[in-house]
Amino acid sequence: MPLAIDVLTLFPRMLDGFLAESILGKGIAAGYLGVKVHDLRAWATDKHRTADDRPFGGGAGMVLKPEPVFAAIEQLQTPGCRRIYLTPDGLPLSPAMAQSLARERHLIFLSGHYEGIDQRIRDHVIDQEVSIGDYVLTNGTLAAAVVIDALARFIPGVLGEEKSLTHESFSSKLLDFPQYTRPAEFRGMSVPEVLLSGNHAEIEKWRAARQMEKTRQVRPDLLN
Amino acid sequence: MPLAIDVLTLFPRMLDGFLAESILGKGIAAGYLGVKVHDLRAWATDKHRTADDRPFGGGAGMVLKPEPVFAAIEQLQTPGCRRIYLTPDGLPLSPAMAQSLARERHLIFLSGHYEGIDQRIRDHVIDQEVSIGDYVLTNGTLAAAVVIDALARFIPGVLGEEKSLTHESFSSKLLDFPQYTRPAEFRGMSVPEVLLSGNHAEIEKWRAARQMEKTRQVRPDLLN
Repeated sequence: MPLAIDVLTLFPRMLDGFLAESILGKGIAAGYLGVKVHDLRAWATDKHRTADDRPFGGGAGMVLKPEPVFAAIEQLQTPGCRRIYLTPDGLPLSPAMAQSLARERHLIFLSGHYEGIDQRIRDHVIDQEVSIGDYVLTNGTLAAAVVIDALARFIPGVLGEEKSLTHESFSSKLLDFPQYTRPAEFRGMSVPEVLLSGNHAEIEKWRAARQMEKTRQVRPDLLN
Repeated sequence: MPLAIDVLTLFPRMLDGFLAESILGKGIAAGYLGVKVHDLRAWATDKHRTADDRPFGGGAGMVLKPEPVFAAIEQLQTPGCRRIYLTPDGLPLSPAMAQSLARERHLIFLSGHYEGIDQRIRDHVIDQEVSIGDYVLTNGTLAAAVVIDALARFIPGVLGEEKSLTHESFSSKLLDFPQYTRPAEFRGMSVPEVLLSGNHAEIEKWRAARQMEKTRQVRPDLLN
């Protein structure tokens, strides 16, 4: 059974292009994973389809109400599925987390308003809170797309070449080495000679040195 | 003049839904910012519209070629514009960076292949490299969307309520406090009494304590 993903959002059309195009779209078309996007308002029961309300205790913005979210998750969930809430308060997404999520059978992603969701949802029908980075988005739908894209790369078959997972940023805790392709000379700018040498040991050495150099310069925090 | 944004990508349709829906779509429709998405292949000159090629020195995957990218950026750039490459090797996106980008007049976002782009592009026609997090995506188009969404929040008028920027994760270097909305009691689960008290000093105190508690528990690194 391929991984089944449900996304709950107030902005279901936001992901249309993302799911149709690119490597992810091909992976879905080929049956390596399935993604369904649901409008949370479908589970609102009043005539205005209200899904949010003002926060208790004051403050600006709107907060996602408990009733439609409980109803949606209770209808979609399956035994053993993981229910994930996208929030800047969550644990940071990492390649290890993406790889672990890719091994699940059923994931439900809940994307909330930027002002937050009722805490009772988080306490009772969410298994895991995930952050894609230390910044705030207008809502969590893009964050769900980012997590799906990051985990899809670990599903066998989605990336054409298995090897492309091995040499890249973070697989070695270092940033990537510089890449060059044809033409070897472009407007007087040349490709480093070692890359044209065919000497694979020298190429590996050069690349490893560049990775260390770039990581020291841009992200020394990764070396601690 | 509202902020003008150009996005260069091999997957231009990926952003269709993102640009049409949500708060960002409303901000574009209201004229607070403009976003144009361009297919990089439009600047490829051979009959197959080739935009990528194998890396020099070996390795899996494809690398974005210099010619179409130089041509595209040279056609689109304006004096004083910022040319940004989305890459996990870049400087991490933060609210401060998003706020600073929101003050620019013209931004060009280049989204590359996951295997990378020719280094000569980065050396000569890119001003700033930005990462949305320590993980790898199938390509940089979603990352461009995340940066645009994060910066759009700082453009006056895009968020309806100015105040909603003030109380949120990272504005105080702490994670957010729990939010609750109606109903005050749902399936036996109650909202904390202090939030219904109307005592604003007590509510502030309770929220500050919850922020510190949650930050200590989930992200102690933010307290260093």
